[in-house]
Amino acid sequence: MPRPGQLHLNAFLMSVGHHEASWRLPESDPYADLDVEHFKNLARIAERGKLDSLFLADGPVLWDQVGRRPSGVLEPTVLLTALAGATEHIGLIATASTTYNEPYNLARRFASLDIVSGGRAGWNIVTTAGLDAARNFNLDALPAHKERYERAAEFVDVSLKLWDSWDDEAIVADKERGVWGDDGKIYPPAHRGRYYSVAGALNVPRSAQGHPVLVQAGSSENGRNFAARYAEAVFTAHQTLSDAQEFYDDLKRRAAEHGRDPDHVKILPGIVPIIGTTSSQARDLEAELNNLIRPEYAIRQLAELLGVPESELDLDSQLPAHLPEEEQIEGAKSRRTLVVNLGRRERLTVRELIARLGGGRGHLTFAGTAVQVADQIEHWYESGAADGFNIMPPVLPSGLAAFVDQVVPILQERGRFRTEYTGRTLREHYGLPRPENRNTVPADPAARRTVVLHP
Amino acid sequence: MPRPGQLHLNAFLMSVGHHEASWRLPESDPYADLDVEHFKNLARIAERGKLDSLFLADGPVLWDQVGRRPSGVLEPTVLLTALAGATEHIGLIATASTTYNEPYNLARRFASLDIVSGGRAGWNIVTTAGLDAARNFNLDALPAHKERYERAAEFVDVSLKLWDSWDDEAIVADKERGVWGDDGKIYPPAHRGRYYSVAGALNVPRSAQGHPVLVQAGSSENGRNFAARYAEAVFTAHQTLSDAQEFYDDLKRRAAEHGRDPDHVKILPGIVPIIGTTSSQARDLEAELNNLIRPEYAIRQLAELLGVPESELDLDSQLPAHLPEEEQIEGAKSRRTLVVNLGRRERLTVRELIARLGGGRGHLTFAGTAVQVADQIEHWYESGAADGFNIMPPVLPSGLAAFVDQVVPILQERGRFRTEYTGRTLREHYGLPRPENRNTVPADPAARRTVVLHP
Repeated sequence: MPRPGQLHLNAFLMSVGHHEASWRLPESDPYADLDVEHFKNLARIAERGKLDSLFLADGPVLWDQVGRRPSGVLEPTVLLTALAGATEHIGLIATASTTYNEPYNLARRFASLDIVSGGRAGWNIVTTAGLDAARNFNLDALPAHKERYERAAEFVDVSLKLWDSWDDEAIVADKERGVWGDDGKIYPPAHRGRYYSVAGALNVPRSAQGHPVLVQAGSSENGRNFAARYAEAVFTAHQTLSDAQEFYDDLKRRAAEHGRDPDHVKILPGIVPIIGTTSSQARDLEAELNNLIRPEYAIRQLAELLGVPESELDLDSQLPAHLPEEEQIEGAKSRRTLVVNLGRRERLTVRELIARLGGGRGHLTFAGTAVQVADQIEHWYESGAADGFNIMPPVLPSGLAAFVDQVVPILQERGRFRTEYTGRTLREHYGLPRPENRNTVPADPAARRTVVLHP
Repeated sequence: MPRPGQLHLNAFLMSVGHHEASWRLPESDPYADLDVEHFKNLARIAERGKLDSLFLADGPVLWDQVGRRPSGVLEPTVLLTALAGATEHIGLIATASTTYNEPYNLARRFASLDIVSGGRAGWNIVTTAGLDAARNFNLDALPAHKERYERAAEFVDVSLKLWDSWDDEAIVADKERGVWGDDGKIYPPAHRGRYYSVAGALNVPRSAQGHPVLVQAGSSENGRNFAARYAEAVFTAHQTLSDAQEFYDDLKRRAAEHGRDPDHVKILPGIVPIIGTTSSQARDLEAELNNLIRPEYAIRQLAELLGVPESELDLDSQLPAHLPEEEQIEGAKSRRTLVVNLGRRERLTVRELIARLGGGRGHLTFAGTAVQVADQIEHWYESGAADGFNIMPPVLPSGLAAFVDQVVPILQERGRFRTEYTGRTLREHYGLPRPENRNTVPADPAARRTVVLHP
């Protein structure tokens, strides 16, 4: 019996496309990474497709060499605020680092985006791998993976306290008595922890959806535990159905072990859909893009991910037999393992591996017709490998328009995707309950209106 | 001979008005502090008046008791991004703290706002007084005034390096060769200082106006030196013309001593214009607002500013004879002195002093007709006390609409204010040159196209 229900679809936006060479196509505007009108156009296309949300990756660092591809990255809470004004329904998920921010500032900025957008904000919580980022924040070494996650957990705990520091009924607006708010309904966190001390209440109240949706994107052991405890949506990368199923089962089980409803953790792998009118046309577009890659740029990044000197990688040979193990690196652990497994399993030369990573940096690339893409998405959904997908168009805007105008209608006809928005907030799009304020949860669980997500 | 030229006018926005009791008026929406549509409406009114900029104060802390007045404060870079989308010309100045941010994050966020808005961003640099804010950022004590300013100077130095880390010609977008940017035209700051180490380049290039306009608002000795060195606009508070003249002359002189063109430091005192069709009607509105103040809220804040226990202040007596001197407090030094001088000079009871501060927290409140307000503004301009004003309407939106529709046309008729925007960027509105990238200034000063602001 096929799995019932509808799936969730996010639009993962990145300059003129996820394929690193997309900017070289004749159709691409190479300055679009810095053009807010480009992103507004993308947001409107995604909303036309009734997608759940827009998503932006981020890091506080200049990624890689600027020769390689468009390298301007507007700060995501700023850019998504601009997109909030150009849309009405679609969710707005920004990546931000727990390692290089202060909880009061970041919780406040997300709360502000959440209010400005009418309850459409989400926070993709990252701990930020990479020495280059560390060196922009007074550090000479990247904090250890485990410490980054410990810090992240406390950061999120503090953020939740800040987001709950106003009762939903704190504003009374009594003009007659001259009392705007009820000071008895303000709950300062008074948090003193290992990494953070935050005494006072936020200066922004709760939003229409309570607080921003918590999203997480790390798949290491530390990352999975973190996701199981906090995440309401998980962005993940898998090359095979079986890997995705293993991850899906594992994370849902871990969430249940934390006393959470597994259905309140949406698992959304990334997919780079290369859409053609025929499958051979789609493969031609993929080859055209891969032929535009300049591997001398990509090899440097690959060496860094694998933790080896660039000189140990040869474009026309397979990966070296001996590479540092996942336990030995402090960076993006699960992505490193995915890339090594891909190279070994398919016996790819470094040049071929770079081409395979050029589209989605380790996310699944799938070239085919709209029907084939829809089939693939539905198959993973029905096989218990995904609650939906993070759509990573190789070329923007054309790849997003193709997905929205060709693939989405097929999924809608099959009853697999909404034909109209039924809610206003991101939490409603994802089918997540509005969290109670943890300062005002009634003592009797039977009296609770909604499930508490983080007890 | 009267001083020639035109003055500058900013709209200082604050929830439903600067008067603390404005929210109690029948016309006021007590939820407007959290309503982006309210602020978009204000932005459009200000742009209708061809004002130079919008300005938002800020602090990472819940100010005071929520009973007193609307207390939600949306994070300013988020709110101004939303307003950028609702306007075309007006400048957008956000306050942000150097004490409680990291340079890479903040420089990037302002650069992003600057690009999204087409070169309209300004940063009001504050060091953030108050123990309550410190306690939201892992501290048990407020950093000393002097240390806060030392840190601020280094913070701004780093920000300038980050904003100049891309050459204006760094993007080549050569699709044919597959080279997007010229890595030789990226200038990583490699900054190692007393407070900050920031190695890498920003991931956002220079904007249409080079970098955001630097604004400063402290008037203590430390604050004046900081402004003289960095500020391109200074927001200040004065109760008397002579105080304003002293400040104006002093700051212009200090700027010249730093080798800067004094005309590139715009001095803009705040004014709370209470506008009536007759002067007695204006005074009635002022009295109506003052009668709505609940002094039991205000007295607490006054005690904190003065550095005394609340019990030492009596509503119906003058200020205590002995108060801590400016040197003894680590908070808002110059504002403390302004308030003490006002109370003593006019022999005000604490209740009267609270009423005088209720409109503008120490800024000049002026009740009169539109002509009288225009006269006052022009008089200070002609007397060498101001290059323009930061307009602080007591009630919003009505007070801003009254200023724009009644006072601005008078100033325009007198040739004292623009009738159309002639530039696109905030720097152009202020008559400031676009700064050269300090990494690419030609060795021969004669070859420079524009004046370097921070040599």
